[in-house]
Amino acid sequence: MDDSRKKEWLASRKQIRDSRSADHLFAALRSGNRTALSSAITLLESTLPTDEMEATKLIRLCLPYTGKSIRIGITGVPGVGKSSFIESFGQTILKENKKLAVLAIDPSSERSGGSILGDKTRMTFLSQEENVFIRPSAAGSTLGGVARKTRETIILCEAAGYDVILIETVGVGQSEIMVHSMVDFFLLLLLSGAGDELQGIKRGIMEMADGLAVTKADGDNVKRAELAARELKNAIHLFPPTKNGWIPEVKTCSSLQGTNVDLIWEMIDRFVRHTHLNGSFLDKRKHQDLYWMQETLKDLLLHGLFSNSEVQQQLPTMQDEVLKGNVSAFEAAETIYKMYLKAK
Amino acid sequence: MDDSRKKEWLASRKQIRDSRSADHLFAALRSGNRTALSSAITLLESTLPTDEMEATKLIRLCLPYTGKSIRIGITGVPGVGKSSFIESFGQTILKENKKLAVLAIDPSSERSGGSILGDKTRMTFLSQEENVFIRPSAAGSTLGGVARKTRETIILCEAAGYDVILIETVGVGQSEIMVHSMVDFFLLLLLSGAGDELQGIKRGIMEMADGLAVTKADGDNVKRAELAARELKNAIHLFPPTKNGWIPEVKTCSSLQGTNVDLIWEMIDRFVRHTHLNGSFLDKRKHQDLYWMQETLKDLLLHGLFSNSEVQQQLPTMQDEVLKGNVSAFEAAETIYKMYLKAK
Repeated sequence: MDDSRKKEWLASRKQIRDSRSADHLFAALRSGNRTALSSAITLLESTLPTDEMEATKLIRLCLPYTGKSIRIGITGVPGVGKSSFIESFGQTILKENKKLAVLAIDPSSERSGGSILGDKTRMTFLSQEENVFIRPSAAGSTLGGVARKTRETIILCEAAGYDVILIETVGVGQSEIMVHSMVDFFLLLLLSGAGDELQGIKRGIMEMADGLAVTKADGDNVKRAELAARELKNAIHLFPPTKNGWIPEVKTCSSLQGTNVDLIWEMIDRFVRHTHLNGSFLDKRKHQDLYWMQETLKDLLLHGLFSNSEVQQQLPTMQDEVLKGNVSAFEAAETIYKMYLKAK
Repeated sequence: MDDSRKKEWLASRKQIRDSRSADHLFAALRSGNRTALSSAITLLESTLPTDEMEATKLIRLCLPYTGKSIRIGITGVPGVGKSSFIESFGQTILKENKKLAVLAIDPSSERSGGSILGDKTRMTFLSQEENVFIRPSAAGSTLGGVARKTRETIILCEAAGYDVILIETVGVGQSEIMVHSMVDFFLLLLLSGAGDELQGIKRGIMEMADGLAVTKADGDNVKRAELAARELKNAIHLFPPTKNGWIPEVKTCSSLQGTNVDLIWEMIDRFVRHTHLNGSFLDKRKHQDLYWMQETLKDLLLHGLFSNSEVQQQLPTMQDEVLKGNVSAFEAAETIYKMYLKAK
């Protein structure tokens, strides 16, 4: 091949190597290179052993530069307008000259299919902004896998100098508990319409929220939104107080008109100052770190057990025996466990 | 020794053997012998290997005769009057010619010290009733241990022919989640006094309840109790619907005067009929069985890991590294896990 073709070829080879090298990616993302950040996240998601080693190395390199952002979880049922809210909320954040990363958790999503945030056109403004990084949900077979990728993506984004990290999730299923355990502030978006707005939201989510916002408070919907907000305030009034002494606030806002969205940023700012003052901000993060260590250990142990061929053979039978009431759940578990210990 | 002393001695020896024999205990508790039921539960709690074998055998013998009772969890903060409520509620149940077992879960309790229900004099009426069996909380170092003992005690009580099983727990900490996952109906007792009544109750408990009762609705407290009930109804109205389509009901009652306590029994009766009709009653129990199998497996695996000497040596260091931000929670977990696999 002629020289130019060869140069091209060599360059492309180098690019591929670089996109797989912890040192290169670290330097590049620290310098604020968004493409490098994307490649780094892709590296995290790779299952090639060599990639996994580089990924671990990369995380280690990044750790000293992390922890300085505000991590905000945003949830709500489909149709509540999460993307429109983030589009509007993000602009409020950018006004403060902050760098914004928008991630998503959607365990049900597949790279191929419609994962939330997959379609950036839903955030036309933010997706064109210099100081904004948007990443669709990591695809993953297990919730634990998605959790890990997301947690590590947070580390990369913080090392890349992002000040605010929004993590969007659908208000159904386990994903909230997961997001709640990796963010500083958990925001629940609701639609007006007394009660109905919680249809589909997992029970307990409401009590997990540090703040609630009734969306689409515009036009002739303003009154209904404010009524819903009042009802929610009464409900929260009945909830037990949070450990950190913060009383969740309820706001109404319109992403369409961008009205009151700034109030939500102010609320989060109050929250951060409040929890920094009483020390609960850092306590929560430490607690979350140990929580994830424990959860990962459980995942690894269970995975090790369930991937054991003998266990795989016996498990259905044992479960059947339990459901038939022939064996107690505890005896069944012990039988499986002993079998596992013998087998390995 | 002379014959009478020898007879006595032999008798006492036999009694001790019997109180440790699965077959004997099974026959005796099936015949409705309460002392045998007590000895059987004590056998469950024994840590002697031979006793543990007999206990497992006993549970197996009992399993075919279980599942026919209604299991009711009762929680509320100290001072809400759980014991007085159970004393009054129990009499309502006895009127229906049912046999009633009252258990308690209090992980904090020690056999020695003040475990809830430990002091039977708090249930002067029930404790003297022929058809009532009262057992204080099983002491246990781990929550998992207490859970197992309680679950197995339920099995024994059902085999002994008890129709209704009440499980009392303190409305703080993990114990509710545990009780909630082993009962058919979860009742939350509250004090009147807008909001304050939930002080101390763990967040999320309210959304776990199938029914709520504002206690001490007597004298000049009736109005405040009814006000509290109304507010709670509004709050519940905002909660997402339960999977089984049951809308939690809110009642007021007075254990002192025994007023409206029967309404709570009626509510539970409605719940049972509702969930039997749509099949969720048995679904929930099956789900609970598999849940406990999974939880027990986790406990066994984690216990196996944490009782490994090398892990015990390294764990504090790793946790420290995580908290210092030198190692990610995931890498730390993997390091511990690999160490464990090598070590065994």
